[in-house]
Amino acid sequence: MALPPVYLSLDAAMSPKITVELLRQLRQAMRNTKYIAEPIQAYIVPSGDAHQSEYIAPCDCRREFICGFNGSAGTAIVTEKHAAMWTDGRYFLQASQQMDNNWTLMKMGLKETLSQEDWLISVLPENSTVGVDPWIIAADQWKNMSKALASAGHSLVAVQDNLIDAIWMDRPTRPSTQLLTLGLGFTGLTWQDKMTALRSKMAERKISWFVATALDEIAWLFNLRGSDIEYNPVFFAYAIVGMNTIRLFVDIKRLAVPTVREHLQLDTPSKVELSIQTAPYESVFTELQAVCASLGPKEKVWISDKASCALTQVIPKAHRSPIPYTPLCLAKAVKNATEIQGMKMAHIKDAVALCELFAWLEKEIPKGTVTEISAADKAEELRSQQKDFVGLSFPSISSVGPNGAIIHYRPLPETNRTLSLNEIYLLDSGAQYIDGTTDVTRTMHFGSPSAYEKETFTYVLKGHIAVSAAIFPNGTKGHLLDSFARQALWESGLDYLHGTGHGVGCFLNVHEGPCGISYKTFADEPLEAGMIVSDEPGYYEDGLFGIRIENVVLVVPAKPKYNYRNKGSLTFEPLTLVPIQAKMVNTDLLTQKEVSLGPHSLEFIFYQTHCFFRRCHSFIYTKIKHSFISNFKKSSLYSSNI
Amino acid sequence: MALPPVYLSLDAAMSPKITVELLRQLRQAMRNTKYIAEPIQAYIVPSGDAHQSEYIAPCDCRREFICGFNGSAGTAIVTEKHAAMWTDGRYFLQASQQMDNNWTLMKMGLKETLSQEDWLISVLPENSTVGVDPWIIAADQWKNMSKALASAGHSLVAVQDNLIDAIWMDRPTRPSTQLLTLGLGFTGLTWQDKMTALRSKMAERKISWFVATALDEIAWLFNLRGSDIEYNPVFFAYAIVGMNTIRLFVDIKRLAVPTVREHLQLDTPSKVELSIQTAPYESVFTELQAVCASLGPKEKVWISDKASCALTQVIPKAHRSPIPYTPLCLAKAVKNATEIQGMKMAHIKDAVALCELFAWLEKEIPKGTVTEISAADKAEELRSQQKDFVGLSFPSISSVGPNGAIIHYRPLPETNRTLSLNEIYLLDSGAQYIDGTTDVTRTMHFGSPSAYEKETFTYVLKGHIAVSAAIFPNGTKGHLLDSFARQALWESGLDYLHGTGHGVGCFLNVHEGPCGISYKTFADEPLEAGMIVSDEPGYYEDGLFGIRIENVVLVVPAKPKYNYRNKGSLTFEPLTLVPIQAKMVNTDLLTQKEVSLGPHSLEFIFYQTHCFFRRCHSFIYTKIKHSFISNFKKSSLYSSNI
Repeated sequence: MALPPVYLSLDAAMSPKITVELLRQLRQAMRNTKYIAEPIQAYIVPSGDAHQSEYIAPCDCRREFICGFNGSAGTAIVTEKHAAMWTDGRYFLQASQQMDNNWTLMKMGLKETLSQEDWLISVLPENSTVGVDPWIIAADQWKNMSKALASAGHSLVAVQDNLIDAIWMDRPTRPSTQLLTLGLGFTGLTWQDKMTALRSKMAERKISWFVATALDEIAWLFNLRGSDIEYNPVFFAYAIVGMNTIRLFVDIKRLAVPTVREHLQLDTPSKVELSIQTAPYESVFTELQAVCASLGPKEKVWISDKASCALTQVIPKAHRSPIPYTPLCLAKAVKNATEIQGMKMAHIKDAVALCELFAWLEKEIPKGTVTEISAADKAEELRSQQKDFVGLSFPSISSVGPNGAIIHYRPLPETNRTLSLNEIYLLDSGAQYIDGTTDVTRTMHFGSPSAYEKETFTYVLKGHIAVSAAIFPNGTKGHLLDSFARQALWESGLDYLHGTGHGVGCFLNVHEGPCGISYKTFADEPLEAGMIVSDEPGYYEDGLFGIRIENVVLVVPAKPKYNYRNKGSLTFEPLTLVPIQAKMVNTDLLTQKEVSLGPHSLEFIFYQTHCFFRRCHSFIYTKIKHSFISNFKKSSLYSSNI
Repeated sequence: MALPPVYLSLDAAMSPKITVELLRQLRQAMRNTKYIAEPIQAYIVPSGDAHQSEYIAPCDCRREFICGFNGSAGTAIVTEKHAAMWTDGRYFLQASQQMDNNWTLMKMGLKETLSQEDWLISVLPENSTVGVDPWIIAADQWKNMSKALASAGHSLVAVQDNLIDAIWMDRPTRPSTQLLTLGLGFTGLTWQDKMTALRSKMAERKISWFVATALDEIAWLFNLRGSDIEYNPVFFAYAIVGMNTIRLFVDIKRLAVPTVREHLQLDTPSKVELSIQTAPYESVFTELQAVCASLGPKEKVWISDKASCALTQVIPKAHRSPIPYTPLCLAKAVKNATEIQGMKMAHIKDAVALCELFAWLEKEIPKGTVTEISAADKAEELRSQQKDFVGLSFPSISSVGPNGAIIHYRPLPETNRTLSLNEIYLLDSGAQYIDGTTDVTRTMHFGSPSAYEKETFTYVLKGHIAVSAAIFPNGTKGHLLDSFARQALWESGLDYLHGTGHGVGCFLNVHEGPCGISYKTFADEPLEAGMIVSDEPGYYEDGLFGIRIENVVLVVPAKPKYNYRNKGSLTFEPLTLVPIQAKMVNTDLLTQKEVSLGPHSLEFIFYQTHCFFRRCHSFIYTKIKHSFISNFKKSSLYSSNI
């Protein structure tokens, strides 16, 4: 999936939320000394939760509550007289439809649009105070905002009680789902092994404490999963790790389950330094204060620079060591043999489900009864029949014709198109299985694609292959591969306006750091064998169609002819096994090399395609599955022990 | 030229400079109240001059004076007890040979090497004061150093009198060479036009004043050239431009020449706002103070963020608007039609000279009398016979066999190898002509290259062609093209450890911003039609040979089949016309597309090569020249009006 999707509940529809009364109440709260010592003149409502999660739980959708806009990115600011909401180009239309006229839409990326800082400075009376919940603003964002406001004579203050929560009468409670324990067969490493590795990194850099705030990092560290946030198998928690101490902050009720107690060795710790002290989720603040109060003069505490301002500022500056990527983030990104095996199994199951879907589509579409929503539902149903299926890994992007050109599209009843023999169908979807996470995009035509559709599809395929088959030195950062994905499109004057790949978790978040493939030179870490990323170039023709071809690929060592300075080389091995539709390809545009790139080659994909698109429609369900799996087993893609 | 060369005077040789007495004197100066109110505990000696020039005049070689090391990059720091010098991997060997044992070589880029800040903190007594000449430290460097020292209880202070100058008895005087005026036929725009354009950029951004500090920007703005710094046709000056004021700070004696006075309209200015007030070079500080004293409350002053700390801090913070690239830097990078025509002419002349050289080499090498130095001298001699030749644009990298693997090599008597029929010869050289600047690298073999040499040469050539023939959307930054240059090498497990291209001035510095092609994601500006960059991938086998193929290329509009979102596309047109040696190419490794990329194709280059390498040795001098030029004229490379 190229871009974070929209969080649309199907019944939200597109009529604006009436916010007159809510804004009145919020402005009252901004003056209420129950919450703040002095009235504030503006209140900032960011998108995120206290863990800077990309996907958030319903109780954390505060920005949506106050303004009605429910896209994944956006910040609302309310002053005594104004209310404004900043979002980017993906959401201009949606935001304008979901917000009433009490709100001004601030279109980010347009030259004339003021930044939040500049806008505040332009509307605030002199010496104003701007409030924000320090738990949902990241430390680096606080710093920038605070500096900008100070330069204009204003000040940014932390408002401890969230003012949205204060007026949100039917706010959902924070989820506290059952925890799932993962054994060695899925994780490859016990949580004790991971703890020891973390501590050795800390010792290496002379760090006394590490504060874990990202939910996927905590889930990975303790080999636990939850379902507090849709699509992301994580649970609300914090952890503080010292050289002899482990503190886990989580709703204590969740720890009553015997399997969880046993997994964490809560009652019978093997060693003192591996004994976990548990405490309520909310107590992390005071516990971190206590830890910091006892720090020696030279002791340092690691915390992500994207952690909340509230938690970051607990650590005195002299002891604070903020890092862009935590050791957990880096360790989690490099999958071990067990995780890789699990990811491969998950991708076989996922391919079986999607091949069944394609056969079903081929049969059903001519009847005119399949819609974007029903196709996505069918995909979910077929996936759910696979072993260890947990749920989807993100909301399916199921889009027909012009809807395919909307990169973050998610079908709604009022936009739902019927699949036909005349339009391109793009399906970007994925699942969580206990053994792994999938994310795959295929673009298909069930009638006769036009020459132009085939041409552009082939350019995208050439880009996809160029990345997938790239050989590059150890230590190369993913952003250096991005142009390979675009070269064929560029040569014909075409392009796509999103990145090419993101890190993928193993039964964890479908988007994870610290690596990726993008023209944006964010601070990505070098690619390493064992990392897993997506390879998903695309092409979008507004009002007509969208094309995207996405595989999840594993970084593996390559063995080219030479080995310059003993640096070693890397390449990718595709994990995704879903066939690419042969009829969309104009083979005249492919080089011989592109056609025959080894066992993961187009020839192999064509072979699969041939099986499924030429013969599948007459196969029965189990026969498809068997033939598909046996084909994989015969191929050199998989070792015989699968 | 891939990397800044070393500033080696041929007689400097490689014996260490004895610095006992110099260090004693410097330490005395560090306590002398004649220069500073309180003794300082450390003194920093950076590489640069007051204009942050890449190449510097002899009077500015202070770091070389104090420690003996004369590489292009390095910073010396002297404390009461220690003396240390930081430089990068290109210079470890050279620095260790040129410095005596009073100095510690700090090898940058190695994990165990402390940064200047950390080293100072580790050796200084509590509450120390560190001094630096504020004129030769850039504002952004001052900021970082000052912050780091403050965090450890020390302070950074500006020492107005340079302490090296205080002990440098025979310090050369600052050059003040004759100024050359350039007419419209060379510049395409009068300085008055440039001034008007600058002022309109200032008005657009509501900027009242602009302080020009980079020497090439000042030379470009006033259509003047000098020869104060070797290889760079610039002159020491500053300029301050307001909406109705122009102040030029330069050694006043230089303005006595009637042509210069007339060019600048010093005696008869056409308009008040185009009347230039001249003042001595040294008076820029007090004049800028005067300008700042009269600023209105909201007035802003533009200055490069790489300008000296001294000049930057004259501007009160509230009025200071530092920019990474000045409007002059950006305007200068986009060459106008006249400049492009001049660059083309310069490249024809340069190609003629180099073809003569190659023919001469082919004849002379078998005699065993040609050395790296004599070949470089011959190249200079042949170039100097061309019209409007001014000098070299950088010290020639003339290297045989293993010397070619030293990327910044410059032949010295003690390293000078003889060209033979057995070793690869790499020549990276360029010239300044009044109509343009050249920079070209060719790698040749005058006997029979080995299969391995041909193979690696061909990979480099493939990379060179991939960049040169790339088509990319308007707005693309050069760093996104860097991987194209490496793809063929990477596929065979090879790479090169330098960037792929740099901006090239028009009868100005051979290295200029703001664009480039590099894996390092420095803040490069997007490529634009009219920009000129080098395309110079390479491959280096330590102890054996070096390969580099460098053309200077012009960014031009491309017209591919489609035009996505009306963005338009760009590509490159090679300006360099020097043939590439056909016998170094393994044509089996080239695709058909690589062989036939239009009129600037390898076929064309092969044609030239054929002419010169197969027949040249029997041609007489003028015949070569005539045939070469007439070939260009017949080709589609040049319009008939050359």
